[in-house]
Amino acid sequence: MINKLTEKIRKTHAPIVVGLDPMLNYIPKHIQEAAFKACGETLEGAAEAIWQFNKEIVDATYDLIPAVKPQIAMYEQFGIPGLMAFKKTVDYCKEKDLVVIGDIKRGDIGSTSAAYAAGHIGKVQVGSKEYAGFDEDFVTVNPYLGSDGVNPFIDVCKKEKKGLFILVKTSNPSSGEFQDQLVNGRPLYELVGQKVAEWGQECMGDTYSYIGAVVGATYPEMGKILRRIMPKAYILVPGYGAQGGQGKDLVHFFNEDGLGAIVNSSRGIIAAYKQEKYAKMGEADFADASRKAVEDMIADIDGALQAAK
Amino acid sequence: MINKLTEKIRKTHAPIVVGLDPMLNYIPKHIQEAAFKACGETLEGAAEAIWQFNKEIVDATYDLIPAVKPQIAMYEQFGIPGLMAFKKTVDYCKEKDLVVIGDIKRGDIGSTSAAYAAGHIGKVQVGSKEYAGFDEDFVTVNPYLGSDGVNPFIDVCKKEKKGLFILVKTSNPSSGEFQDQLVNGRPLYELVGQKVAEWGQECMGDTYSYIGAVVGATYPEMGKILRRIMPKAYILVPGYGAQGGQGKDLVHFFNEDGLGAIVNSSRGIIAAYKQEKYAKMGEADFADASRKAVEDMIADIDGALQAAK
Repeated sequence: MINKLTEKIRKTHAPIVVGLDPMLNYIPKHIQEAAFKACGETLEGAAEAIWQFNKEIVDATYDLIPAVKPQIAMYEQFGIPGLMAFKKTVDYCKEKDLVVIGDIKRGDIGSTSAAYAAGHIGKVQVGSKEYAGFDEDFVTVNPYLGSDGVNPFIDVCKKEKKGLFILVKTSNPSSGEFQDQLVNGRPLYELVGQKVAEWGQECMGDTYSYIGAVVGATYPEMGKILRRIMPKAYILVPGYGAQGGQGKDLVHFFNEDGLGAIVNSSRGIIAAYKQEKYAKMGEADFADASRKAVEDMIADIDGALQAAK
Repeated sequence: MINKLTEKIRKTHAPIVVGLDPMLNYIPKHIQEAAFKACGETLEGAAEAIWQFNKEIVDATYDLIPAVKPQIAMYEQFGIPGLMAFKKTVDYCKEKDLVVIGDIKRGDIGSTSAAYAAGHIGKVQVGSKEYAGFDEDFVTVNPYLGSDGVNPFIDVCKKEKKGLFILVKTSNPSSGEFQDQLVNGRPLYELVGQKVAEWGQECMGDTYSYIGAVVGATYPEMGKILRRIMPKAYILVPGYGAQGGQGKDLVHFFNEDGLGAIVNSSRGIIAAYKQEKYAKMGEADFADASRKAVEDMIADIDGALQAAK
């Protein structure tokens, strides 16, 4: 799957991923109203609004981008109907040949991590049959529990040719509270980065490992160091746009081959129509605004990469 | 909710929680066969088997215990039908007046953590209405992302009078890989424990905070230290029984009032009928074996607590 991701990034010239994290207040009124009319002001109604919203955005952008990253929390908050919209979104994006990164940040121990891995990137045995519960291509994983928690995910990746992005340095302001603590003079996130590089060694695709890392756009200096610590890991970079990161901050997340990083934007793309810059396109044409925002993001990052050459 | 938990522990003399983590191979053949007959060898069939299994165990033990802890991964692996069985289990246990600890180990940043919190212990707004997606009483939370990730859960706890158990020192062999790293001469888990104590200060129930911690039974010496660092935090203790912990290892997780800790057993209770000790009761009476295992566990822990007085 890392080969497919790399190939699609090369082909689209777009090292970006669209975060499908639909809050209800991002969703245009006409979509919400139609969904509530069909299903009532219920969890099912919210899920229907999310699905219709996602579908229009995917239809408007899928030819420009290699991948999407649905954030499962935004679906899980609407209970079972919300998770059904998540699954529908994953399936639809795969139909459009997009690489799907499930942003699930799961992590537990032994058989429990194995269960998450089976449910999200693997298969589960039921009697004589096998089923894929959610069937994403990559998932994000929390490393706090150590190798016991991560290895079951890696085992499934090897079997299914899927991949992981392991949290190393997250984009939020308080990420340093634990992640930056010095261990033998070096911050904890470097230690985690080193483990990611180790875990990734035996999981190589053609040029990159399918064990990647999450490093926030908001910490470019740390990104530079982590790039060197994990040369073969793809870095998933959240925090672009709404959280403050810009194209010029991101060049050090990439390798000299112009690959090795994929930058996420969620709100900046899916709620683009709410920004002054795109507002004139109108709420009804929100998906066109998303397409324009994707084009602008690609230009920003590509421009920064070219300027850095 | 911490008051309810404390009250129920006092009343039952059972500082224990039954982990409802049903792997299919724990479930007696006759239940699996009936479920597959009704729903086929499908995800729905697996979910039906899980639900019937859980229901019998809850019916056989609910009067002895204060709480249950369903591990969501074991349901999530069966996709949407699995999560429907999770929800059904949560609802049924609440009908039986059990405190339900959702072992979800979620953790993300800002609005994403807020979405998880809304979905699991809070309510979500849909138009003019509010809904509770999963509606557990407590959830487990991963602290790797720092205060930004935890505070949204705390906000919901304050509003809804619910509670958290934050991962401090997990029970697995490799938990030390990151958690034991020395920060200014003290292990990281102590730093996390200190934060749990701080977060808990403004969330006090009558005698304990509703911000608790997870500390593995497999690390009794660390439990002793963490008990002192977080005197008002309830400690959820996994790793009893199957993972190797015993009653005598657990006394230091408790305060002098005999409260302050709640010990989880999953496999040791729900798959008791597979142990030599209970096997003579037979697979058909698996729930009676679970009841006997609960009684034995209460006696073991109570005995250890009395001996330590």
